[in-house]
Amino acid sequence: MPELRKDPFSSRWIVIAPEYAPGIYELGRVGAAVADPLFSRPPASCSLCPENEVHTPPEVYALRPHDGPAAAANSPGWALRVIPHKFPVLRVEGDLSPRAQGVYDHMNGIGAHEVIVETASHDRQMADLSPGEIEPILHAFRQRLLDLRRDTRFRYLSVFKAHGQRAGAGFGHSHSQIIATPFVPQGVLDKIAALHGHRDARKRCLMCDIARQETEDGLRVVHDNGAFVAFTPYASRTPFETWIVPLSHAPMFEDDNGRYGPLATILSVILRKLRAALSDPSYILNLHNAPCADPDNHFHIEIRPVLGRSIPVPWGSGTYVNPTPPEDAARYLREIES
Amino acid sequence: MPELRKDPFSSRWIVIAPEYAPGIYELGRVGAAVADPLFSRPPASCSLCPENEVHTPPEVYALRPHDGPAAAANSPGWALRVIPHKFPVLRVEGDLSPRAQGVYDHMNGIGAHEVIVETASHDRQMADLSPGEIEPILHAFRQRLLDLRRDTRFRYLSVFKAHGQRAGAGFGHSHSQIIATPFVPQGVLDKIAALHGHRDARKRCLMCDIARQETEDGLRVVHDNGAFVAFTPYASRTPFETWIVPLSHAPMFEDDNGRYGPLATILSVILRKLRAALSDPSYILNLHNAPCADPDNHFHIEIRPVLGRSIPVPWGSGTYVNPTPPEDAARYLREIES
Repeated sequence: MPELRKDPFSSRWIVIAPEYAPGIYELGRVGAAVADPLFSRPPASCSLCPENEVHTPPEVYALRPHDGPAAAANSPGWALRVIPHKFPVLRVEGDLSPRAQGVYDHMNGIGAHEVIVETASHDRQMADLSPGEIEPILHAFRQRLLDLRRDTRFRYLSVFKAHGQRAGAGFGHSHSQIIATPFVPQGVLDKIAALHGHRDARKRCLMCDIARQETEDGLRVVHDNGAFVAFTPYASRTPFETWIVPLSHAPMFEDDNGRYGPLATILSVILRKLRAALSDPSYILNLHNAPCADPDNHFHIEIRPVLGRSIPVPWGSGTYVNPTPPEDAARYLREIES
Repeated sequence: MPELRKDPFSSRWIVIAPEYAPGIYELGRVGAAVADPLFSRPPASCSLCPENEVHTPPEVYALRPHDGPAAAANSPGWALRVIPHKFPVLRVEGDLSPRAQGVYDHMNGIGAHEVIVETASHDRQMADLSPGEIEPILHAFRQRLLDLRRDTRFRYLSVFKAHGQRAGAGFGHSHSQIIATPFVPQGVLDKIAALHGHRDARKRCLMCDIARQETEDGLRVVHDNGAFVAFTPYASRTPFETWIVPLSHAPMFEDDNGRYGPLATILSVILRKLRAALSDPSYILNLHNAPCADPDNHFHIEIRPVLGRSIPVPWGSGTYVNPTPPEDAARYLREIES
């Protein structure tokens, strides 16, 4: 019997239907996903590689562990580098000029679009990096968030990572992105509204309630390192969706920098488990944060593998059919060495 | 300069960014989309083909133009046939048994899932059918909607069509689907709320306002046959998204059966234009209807081509980047003979 489970944040009902696509269910269980080759481009023509700094806009942040004369900005020697996107989705220069167009609403496409080059090495993906190498990426996110927040035109800063062609990644070289928008995405507004509603009605944080129930239950827990818990959400939209949530209430990512060490560690564990379970799947990673300092928010990371065309599509209106019960995905991921 | 346009129904901002992906933009313009072969299965092993009726559940509706002794139910001779899905997403038998699971909400996966086999011919897609052959499909939708509405467990009836593998179609044989759910999908609730909000504030129907503005403007109109207008919506989520809207207020699809003739005609025109423009693209077609008779609703059909991996993905939280301005898509589609 299929199940209907309501996502407490979006109020959407998700169908958990293992019988609907038995082949796909099996695929998730035995880790036989069709491999999705990365965008292949040799380092010489990769604009994210060292020695090719001239092909990118000037860097806005970089980590150069061995400072010295060879470590000038926009030259090799960096371990991590943040640059504006060469073909940005939104443009930094200009005014919003919001206006009506008859019944419609229009603004100029003002925003920022940056690329965090996570490593100088062309061939090492985030799952190959040690926690000690991932932690500086989190600090780079923080630095860029703090800087971009000063631009009063921006209402939300989306931090995300697309890995693999199926997830839409345009580079094989490991990278994340930040997009600053003059509006708060509707999905974020919905989530914040759910957190506020729960606080108003019950005087508690919805995500704290969820983290507590998940750790007590254990059924959907993939990993718990004392500071963060990783679990497959109750109403997972897609197979092997995994969330990483701070165990104690933590409104904003930027303010939790004291725990970037354990966050890097659990992120590394989860990425290696997913890679082993699903043959290096494409995935999308999103950092959920609040538009501005909000005591009701509880930041977290969502990772959704993109398993290719054989997964049934949503049939419209945002209803998802997930053939892999999150309890099965969690059990499978728990058993994998990482 | 990219543009930000707000979808008046979902309140989501869409980024129209032709510079972001110039190759894709060009692709849309010149119709050079990579072909997406249909699920290939010979008629002999296609369970939707005549002579294979034994491999499907018993039909719930059929059109047999030449009635006679050879036209018994579940035997060949039909022009159109509706059957329960052999592997349904939701099951008809049982109780909903809604219950809490700690902080979460759960129901049994009760619903109905039917397949409308649109033609007896294995090789003719909907774009190959004449308006006179499409009109009975619309009447079949109506018959099934009227019948399924009598089951009080169901709160919404989703009518949709997935064409092509990229859209998730599981058969190459032309078909549509109906899924009855015990909940109203969130996307439908959002749309109905926008229609109610506009009516409350302005005493007018939002979709009537839009249809009027589009026909006066003409910029985004693809085709207008006096009863229906087809246009690319102002805040198109994806390239070549096209809506078909009744020009005079029409709350419910089931009640508009007097105009299924012109609706079939414009649907045929649009499907042939899209096929010619984009090399037979995969697409998803959704019928937007209301959960129950609602004078504020204005039914319509949404068609979204699925153009494959080269289209940039949403970066999370439901924000879409569309590289093809709907005005360009409309102009291109208008110029195509159909």
